[in-house]
Amino acid sequence: MDLKSYLKKMQELVDESLEKYLPRMDELPSSIHSAMRYSMFAGGKRVRPVLLLAACDAVDGDVRSALPAACAMEMIHTYSLIHDDLPAMDNDDFRRGKPTNHKVFGEATAILAGDALLTEAFILLSNPEFVDGLPPGVLLRVIHEIGLCSGSRGMIGGQVVDMESEGMKDIDLATVLYIHTHKTGALIKASLKCGALIGGADGARLEAVTRYGEAVGLAFQIADDILDIEGTTEQIGKDAGSDQARGKATYPAVMGLADSKRRAAELVDVAVEALAGFGEKADPLREIANYIVKRKS
Amino acid sequence: MDLKSYLKKMQELVDESLEKYLPRMDELPSSIHSAMRYSMFAGGKRVRPVLLLAACDAVDGDVRSALPAACAMEMIHTYSLIHDDLPAMDNDDFRRGKPTNHKVFGEATAILAGDALLTEAFILLSNPEFVDGLPPGVLLRVIHEIGLCSGSRGMIGGQVVDMESEGMKDIDLATVLYIHTHKTGALIKASLKCGALIGGADGARLEAVTRYGEAVGLAFQIADDILDIEGTTEQIGKDAGSDQARGKATYPAVMGLADSKRRAAELVDVAVEALAGFGEKADPLREIANYIVKRKS
Repeated sequence: MDLKSYLKKMQELVDESLEKYLPRMDELPSSIHSAMRYSMFAGGKRVRPVLLLAACDAVDGDVRSALPAACAMEMIHTYSLIHDDLPAMDNDDFRRGKPTNHKVFGEATAILAGDALLTEAFILLSNPEFVDGLPPGVLLRVIHEIGLCSGSRGMIGGQVVDMESEGMKDIDLATVLYIHTHKTGALIKASLKCGALIGGADGARLEAVTRYGEAVGLAFQIADDILDIEGTTEQIGKDAGSDQARGKATYPAVMGLADSKRRAAELVDVAVEALAGFGEKADPLREIANYIVKRKS
Repeated sequence: MDLKSYLKKMQELVDESLEKYLPRMDELPSSIHSAMRYSMFAGGKRVRPVLLLAACDAVDGDVRSALPAACAMEMIHTYSLIHDDLPAMDNDDFRRGKPTNHKVFGEATAILAGDALLTEAFILLSNPEFVDGLPPGVLLRVIHEIGLCSGSRGMIGGQVVDMESEGMKDIDLATVLYIHTHKTGALIKASLKCGALIGGADGARLEAVTRYGEAVGLAFQIADDILDIEGTTEQIGKDAGSDQARGKATYPAVMGLADSKRRAAELVDVAVEALAGFGEKADPLREIANYIVKRKS
């Protein structure tokens, strides 16, 4: 299969859908809708929505029925970036080579645009205009999963521990693991699980896809840590080596670069093995797992 | 009926339920859960949840089945207060006589605690442990209503216009009306609507309770504007006259005090009339409407 064209097709589906789902720029108050759209269309790779759609595909579901959940995931990911970049948090001026939300719209609007994107995710997941046809019981499970992965026991919890351990000496592997599995891993794992749920999977097949998601989520973050060291500023869209400069809790910092690479490769194997019982419809997931550790941006 | 004891009973139900629904203080990361609980138990009057429960009561529903939605509403209200108080927004050091969230936990944790409470509302509304027994279709409608009322076309939209018009001269009534019906009105109206939905109402009865909610929501905010002028700092838990000092868009500022009082009284009449077809189970709602414009804090 041709992974590049598969990714492109899925990314286009996501972008078209976001265009349709998000409040229009001219809807009042237009400042907030401009701010929301600015960050939603700032060049994200759509990793989470593509994984969600590929998971739905892998269990033989209808990819189109998973678009609201895929876009909801991207809204939550984007809100978290807007808030992470705020002066009170990471204080970043650039993201993917573009000025961050608060640099363009001001801090107050950036806080509210993040809040609004988080809210919009749940508006979308319960919007009869877009989710009709999905069983209400499945939708409620998806809403619950997406809530859990992004809340204080998921992504936000990871961000809290990340902040609290910044600049600390002697961070142990358990802390890094907590941060990685919560801050980025939780959303990725939930993307896979929700895609499979919407595709109609349950029981063993749901578990297998979720296990894939868990492994890939961690591999993705370790690869990100490695990229921060080995990538150029141009490739990664932010200052290379910025994690080290900030004393961030990363895998290479506690395990070394070689062991981190080995661990990432192992996790890709775990992910691919989880899909052993699946047919060729799971090929995109298999290819994505390999791609994630080899990517350069 | 004895309104005071009714309110007390409902407030106690809400407090007990929040205690049960919110992550425990000692759950990791404990800093975020402490921050969430600090603001949730900072002496709020539980106006929105009590209205939601009373609406469920009025249509002869089981009040206990409406507790998750009532508490979700209070979580969203509380998150909005935490974010409104931030230095980048209203920059308030005190709320209800206590230090604001960011004064106690720092700005970063306050932003995340707000995010987490907003997320927790939707986790709760889809938590099978707590909402089992409610029809999934009703739950999805409630989730959608709660999302809409708090998003960029609801509460957040009101906050944006409020910010943008602060200190502006010649604010017209239409702008003040937009702010009031969105910033506070939307959540109150949705509380009534959701309480009625959960109580099993549809069609004309649902519309009547929603109409009540619309009128009471606006009356509540006008009463708040009046209280800012006539109340003492001790009564209202913040500096008296602070709206005026900030050049906030308020009803008295554009209509004068006497006309504002008249308008609030008219709205209470509209609210009570909306319930004309209801029996004595709607007495609490009737009494609350009257109480809202007479309260001193």
